[in-house]
Amino acid sequence: MDKILLLNGPNLNRLGKREPEIYGTTTLGELVGNMKKAALAAGYELTAEQSNHEGVLIDFIHMAEDSGFTGIIFNPGAFTHYSYAIRDAIAGIDVPVIEVHISNVHKRETFRHKSVLAEVTAGQIVGLGLLGYELALQALIKT
Amino acid sequence: MDKILLLNGPNLNRLGKREPEIYGTTTLGELVGNMKKAALAAGYELTAEQSNHEGVLIDFIHMAEDSGFTGIIFNPGAFTHYSYAIRDAIAGIDVPVIEVHISNVHKRETFRHKSVLAEVTAGQIVGLGLLGYELALQALIKT
Amino acid sequence: MDKILLLNGPNLNRLGKREPEIYGTTTLGELVGNMKKAALAAGYELTAEQSNHEGVLIDFIHMAEDSGFTGIIFNPGAFTHYSYAIRDAIAGIDVPVIEVHISNVHKRETFRHKSVLAEVTAGQIVGLGLLGYELALQALIKT
Amino acid sequence: MDKILLLNGPNLNRLGKREPEIYGTTTLGELVGNMKKAALAAGYELTAEQSNHEGVLIDFIHMAEDSGFTGIIFNPGAFTHYSYAIRDAIAGIDVPVIEVHISNVHKRETFRHKSVLAEVTAGQIVGLGLLGYELALQALIKT
Amino acid sequence: MDKILLLNGPNLNRLGKREPEIYGTTTLGELVGNMKKAALAAGYELTAEQSNHEGVLIDFIHMAEDSGFTGIIFNPGAFTHYSYAIRDAIAGIDVPVIEVHISNVHKRETFRHKSVLAEVTAGQIVGLGLLGYELALQALIKT
Amino acid sequence: MDKILLLNGPNLNRLGKREPEIYGTTTLGELVGNMKKAALAAGYELTAEQSNHEGVLIDFIHMAEDSGFTGIIFNPGAFTHYSYAIRDAIAGIDVPVIEVHISNVHKRETFRHKSVLAEVTAGQIVGLGLLGYELALQALIKT
Amino acid sequence: MDKILLLNGPNLNRLGKREPEIYGTTTLGELVGNMKKAALAAGYELTAEQSNHEGVLIDFIHMAEDSGFTGIIFNPGAFTHYSYAIRDAIAGIDVPVIEVHISNVHKRETFRHKSVLAEVTAGQIVGLGLLGYELALQALIKT
Amino acid sequence: MDKILLLNGPNLNRLGKREPEIYGTTTLGELVGNMKKAALAAGYELTAEQSNHEGVLIDFIHMAEDSGFTGIIFNPGAFTHYSYAIRDAIAGIDVPVIEVHISNVHKRETFRHKSVLAEVTAGQIVGLGLLGYELALQALIKT
Amino acid sequence: MDKILLLNGPNLNRLGKREPEIYGTTTLGELVGNMKKAALAAGYELTAEQSNHEGVLIDFIHMAEDSGFTGIIFNPGAFTHYSYAIRDAIAGIDVPVIEVHISNVHKRETFRHKSVLAEVTAGQIVGLGLLGYELALQALIKT
Amino acid sequence: MDKILLLNGPNLNRLGKREPEIYGTTTLGELVGNMKKAALAAGYELTAEQSNHEGVLIDFIHMAEDSGFTGIIFNPGAFTHYSYAIRDAIAGIDVPVIEVHISNVHKRETFRHKSVLAEVTAGQIVGLGLLGYELALQALIKT
Amino acid sequence: MDKILLLNGPNLNRLGKREPEIYGTTTLGELVGNMKKAALAAGYELTAEQSNHEGVLIDFIHMAEDSGFTGIIFNPGAFTHYSYAIRDAIAGIDVPVIEVHISNVHKRETFRHKSVLAEVTAGQIVGLGLLGYELALQALIKT
Amino acid sequence: MDKILLLNGPNLNRLGKREPEIYGTTTLGELVGNMKKAALAAGYELTAEQSNHEGVLIDFIHMAEDSGFTGIIFNPGAFTHYSYAIRDAIAGIDVPVIEVHISNVHKRETFRHKSVLAEVTAGQIVGLGLLGYELALQALIKT
Repeated sequence: MDKILLLNGPNLNRLGKREPEIYGTTTLGELVGNMKKAALAAGYELTAEQSNHEGVLIDFIHMAEDSGFTGIIFNPGAFTHYSYAIRDAIAGIDVPVIEVHISNVHKRETFRHKSVLAEVTAGQIVGLGLLGYELALQALIKT
Repeated sequence: MDKILLLNGPNLNRLGKREPEIYGTTTLGELVGNMKKAALAAGYELTAEQSNHEGVLIDFIHMAEDSGFTGIIFNPGAFTHYSYAIRDAIAGIDVPVIEVHISNVHKRETFRHKSVLAEVTAGQIVGLGLLGYELALQALIKT
Repeated sequence: MDKILLLNGPNLNRLGKREPEIYGTTTLGELVGNMKKAALAAGYELTAEQSNHEGVLIDFIHMAEDSGFTGIIFNPGAFTHYSYAIRDAIAGIDVPVIEVHISNVHKRETFRHKSVLAEVTAGQIVGLGLLGYELALQALIKT
Repeated sequence: MDKILLLNGPNLNRLGKREPEIYGTTTLGELVGNMKKAALAAGYELTAEQSNHEGVLIDFIHMAEDSGFTGIIFNPGAFTHYSYAIRDAIAGIDVPVIEVHISNVHKRETFRHKSVLAEVTAGQIVGLGLLGYELALQALIKT
Repeated sequence: MDKILLLNGPNLNRLGKREPEIYGTTTLGELVGNMKKAALAAGYELTAEQSNHEGVLIDFIHMAEDSGFTGIIFNPGAFTHYSYAIRDAIAGIDVPVIEVHISNVHKRETFRHKSVLAEVTAGQIVGLGLLGYELALQALIKT
Repeated sequence: MDKILLLNGPNLNRLGKREPEIYGTTTLGELVGNMKKAALAAGYELTAEQSNHEGVLIDFIHMAEDSGFTGIIFNPGAFTHYSYAIRDAIAGIDVPVIEVHISNVHKRETFRHKSVLAEVTAGQIVGLGLLGYELALQALIKT
Repeated sequence: MDKILLLNGPNLNRLGKREPEIYGTTTLGELVGNMKKAALAAGYELTAEQSNHEGVLIDFIHMAEDSGFTGIIFNPGAFTHYSYAIRDAIAGIDVPVIEVHISNVHKRETFRHKSVLAEVTAGQIVGLGLLGYELALQALIKT
Repeated sequence: MDKILLLNGPNLNRLGKREPEIYGTTTLGELVGNMKKAALAAGYELTAEQSNHEGVLIDFIHMAEDSGFTGIIFNPGAFTHYSYAIRDAIAGIDVPVIEVHISNVHKRETFRHKSVLAEVTAGQIVGLGLLGYELALQALIKT
Repeated sequence: MDKILLLNGPNLNRLGKREPEIYGTTTLGELVGNMKKAALAAGYELTAEQSNHEGVLIDFIHMAEDSGFTGIIFNPGAFTHYSYAIRDAIAGIDVPVIEVHISNVHKRETFRHKSVLAEVTAGQIVGLGLLGYELALQALIKT
Repeated sequence: MDKILLLNGPNLNRLGKREPEIYGTTTLGELVGNMKKAALAAGYELTAEQSNHEGVLIDFIHMAEDSGFTGIIFNPGAFTHYSYAIRDAIAGIDVPVIEVHISNVHKRETFRHKSVLAEVTAGQIVGLGLLGYELALQALIKT
Repeated sequence: MDKILLLNGPNLNRLGKREPEIYGTTTLGELVGNMKKAALAAGYELTAEQSNHEGVLIDFIHMAEDSGFTGIIFNPGAFTHYSYAIRDAIAGIDVPVIEVHISNVHKRETFRHKSVLAEVTAGQIVGLGLLGYELALQALIKT
Repeated sequence: MDKILLLNGPNLNRLGKREPEIYGTTTLGELVGNMKKAALAAGYELTAEQSNHEGVLIDFIHMAEDSGFTGIIFNPGAFTHYSYAIRDAIAGIDVPVIEVHISNVHKRETFRHKSVLAEVTAGQIVGLGLLGYELALQALIKT
């Protein structure tokens, strides 16, 4: 069965608790549950990981390549703004990565505009809430 | 029946002809046909317009507000980089707008990074090909 | 009878409807009516035009020169930030142009600060609401 | 009787003497006389002050608040470009301030474009000569 | 007979009238007449269009591709500084475009230096007056 | 008895009146009273001065050096952003200066980030309300 | 008993060893001991943690929120210049954070000026040596 | 007898006391004495003024014009970096101003490079110590 | 017989050898031969010089003025990006200079966009291959 | 026996697998083996570590100081562009660090130019492939 | 007899011929003659050199050091804006260099403001015409 | 026998004399002697040239290509910061160039960071003293 990696970066372990007026009340556990179900329904096995550690996220990106994953759905959180190390990790694998941001990062602070990852990810889905994860799943499956 | 506006900006009339290695071979007519079918299947009526004229696009954005459209799927093409007039038009309506870009604009020239529209659109789907339009349709319907 | 052109740019057709907390509830029609009356009282004929199209605005600016208008009261809307073509049009005529902005553009987003037209217009009246149009009329008449 | 403060900043004591091809030959005394008459005709008492000292201007701005002035007509001269202290003074009062510049500062040196006061004043009238003071008076009276 | 498109952008309809000390006194009509003659003499049919509308210029650029034109001589006027939409139109066709500017844009305002079109046009001829059009014609014919 | 100078810059004479939601309701007089008491309890004599005049503040900084003060607690207000003259005054004395800002200047407008004084003051205490003055007093006493 | 978290970032484990001319000879262990005693004397329990790992610091910030800490005294070391992930962690909790820097970072290299954390911390104490930690403790207790 | 104004800006009252390794041990009084003697020897009367107040310096610049001074030797101190008000005062008079800086401001901090006065002064003498004043005197006399 | 100077800057001695896919296979000798013939046919004597030395090029520019040349066709190579000395040489003569670049410098590296010479040359011909030299010759002859 | 630390940063665990057209096919294991042999031949013991974790790299840098290593050969990978924390770690030790980059980072993306580490490392060897490690070893031994 | 080097850079061989409205009509030969006389009168031997070649100027700077010159009066012309090689040459000698510019470079184009030499020369005399050379001579002699 | 070119740029003729605390006391002659010996031992003939003239360095780079040299060891000195002409010369040859800088240019002035040559040289060795030349020789021989 084809495998998909759902990777969440820093502070997303607090989904549903942190700034719910922006991020909603669904917890990370619930999101993962829903995504696993949706993946399974489409014939895919979804593995979900979250870490506040840049190095751990890099390790998972390497793992996805070595273990033959079909694609990665990645919400890099704030690392999108400065982690050139994650950028290099993504550039060094063949597995396509779709970047998801829950809120419209362009609506917030100026620095949010800058992404160092967008140049190496396959595409980005921004501002569509948790639905963005689902759409990313479809994108990985249909392309 | 709820109405959705599919709005395509400059040069998208040449979809399928212009730089097919980037944009594919599907024509605008075929894309519109597919989108109308998909909208109808979900119980929506989709109106499609394309223009190379900034003013015409602004007029359509106003029209969507006045005619009670549910949402706009908008590929602004190059206007995303400088049309503050379109930005004001979007900021002045209540209809949600989802911005779609067929190719990953972040992979290309530097100036492509800058968007003056992203701050006022509800969200963006970038780099996922024509599938991006379909996902935008789902996003409008589900939210 | 001397002629004055009242020229309104993009999105001003929605005056009174768009963001009334910023722009008030007076419609463009009402503004034009008031301005025509005020002009007439001072012995001037006021012609009013609005367009969302940059090219149409340029055509009217040329027309004002060719038809011997005394002055132009111009709210360029968002074109003030990037339309070098309108700038060239204004620079190429002898009719004085007074730029009017209803709200204090300096209070809003950063990009609002930059104007490419201010260098070629005779003067600017900013942030004084619809009264700004009246004051511009006086300025054209008295100078 | 309602009171209005006419405040002129650095070098405006030399009005009529300094660069008359830009600023005209009317002196500050004559300007003040005309403005007092115009204010009185409208039922307002106008107090006029000029200073080359930033601190003195701040003191007058505080005074206007404490003495219940209706509004301030302020030509800050070159302080518009860098006096964050005057900016804070204006931001800290409720009396509306209308900024006036005699010449079109946008036509001159590049640094003239930047204003640190425009964000905190109610509006600006620029480039309309001494008439700008009169229009500012009307604006304070009518709004 | 091979076809060449002579395309003139905003404000060039006023050639001969606008700022003659910079642009000379030859009108657009006379320029077009001379260019048609010169083209015919070399065995080419020259079609001439002018518009102040960005969208119209884009339409003509598309038309040149679809109608098998040999090349385009294009004076984009002020659009050279910001029209990414025209840029995309040129990038999307195979017909070579030679950019012509009558005056030496580098001698004027700072912003004039920046061109967003130069990267996608075949070459540029700048500052040589109306002769620049003739040289562009030769360049299209000889290469 | 050792002497300490409490120096407050522009607009701080309005403490308690200006924007109380940011600066609280304690007046400058009350603050000075509290600080004098606290200094005395620690065996120090505290002199307090406030001015909206840059030159006056420079004079007091010179005076502190000449009169053998132990240290200066300085809230420079908006001068922190641009007064290179005060900067030179501080750099030219041996008396340590501790900069205090009542509110977190970093939370406000972008220009607030820039300080031209921080490089020459001994340290900064920012965002801790009036308590910041007390902590600065301790810092002067303990170091 | 109320709890306070003392959090030290990268390289602070080398306090007393690294560049003693800047940071002094007190070790981290001694600093922690002193701070625990001072907190206890004021009726608070102080927990101290140090890490060179960004992710570990984020985990502790989350922990402080979840375990009901009263406040965080945080010396983020070099992370103050680029860790948007720590910034998001601080922005996402209600526990106030006071940022402490031992040396006057503004006196050193240019890049030191920029802080991405200052906008989300309650306040900053900079350049007052280890005394800064004590003052931060007082600030947490008194406010 | 022709008159020359020697004008010294902020912190120059401390000449000989402040940072003698940069500025030497000659006091302002001694400098003024020497300059008066040198001027007299050449048949000029030299008036010397110093102020830490921007407004006072502007007043003296106006006075020099009104009282028919031959020239101004001006060490603006730190005002050279930001006082657009002094700049306007100099631009508004016909008396030539020669700017003197005792130390080579270009050798120090980056911000020292920027002068807003140099564009409006007749010339600058930089880095030649107190001798710079003497050379400026000669320049005024010989030209 | 009127004289024209054909001046080629650094690395153009390697024309035909260096990067032929960009610059073609015609050598400098052949280019010079063709240009001399073309000039002669039009009744002009063409002198051709090439140097990799900035100073030598300046000497030739001076010589052209002193020897009464009609015009200079100048390919400055990389000096176009930084040689303010050549710029001053051109600004100091009355002989018109037409700048030629063989390839479209705007298509290459970012730094290529910047020219310090364009402001002082009469015009520029860019991207039209060796034909650009011929067109420059015509421009000199016809104007 | 003197000890040398060979430290490799993020993504270098994938040497030989990741983008072999840039980095070659030698694996990290093979590189380490070769370096150990070369070090031993010169009478040094080489310890090799790799990590994708910034904090782990900082710990190793501290360790090298505490354990008396002679020098560090460090390929920081992407951390060279933003890790001020690693920068501080290197600045805080006396052990010399030589930075090695396998490929010429200057040939790639613009952001690659910027290094925050180069100011604190002893030297850099860039673009010479795996040979760069050997040369760094020689440099440590010979100096 | 002590020796002084008078060094003139590019285009100064054309003094008196080039732009006399800026540089006057005195030729370089006359200037050199006058300077030699003035030096001799003060007991110095003055050697004068001019070159349009950066390398030649560097050679002369080296020579001045090796031959024991007392000082250099240097008008670097346009090299002041970009010649880091000359900068290094000056930084590498002990002979003091005084930079002279005939016209006020700050009054002209924006790029004129930037000097890469001012940081390494002893001082600068700007805008005082040929008198600047004489003053520089005095400065060398008196210090 | 294979040939290698050792090319030294401006001011390196003064090696051993200029700033010995940075560059050491070895002279250029001694360096060249050592390098020739080392090259010979490896079976290569080394030609050494030094010049302060940009044009001469370009000529040598061309010569290396035409005479079949194996590689160039190049210390461009200050030309690394601005000589686009040398950059083009290197880009136009096939002989690999290794850039050597004796001192760590990144430790010095800000402008030192920028290199316009690094993009076209094969690699760079920075900050390792004269040893850098030897390592560059090895790199040329081994690759």
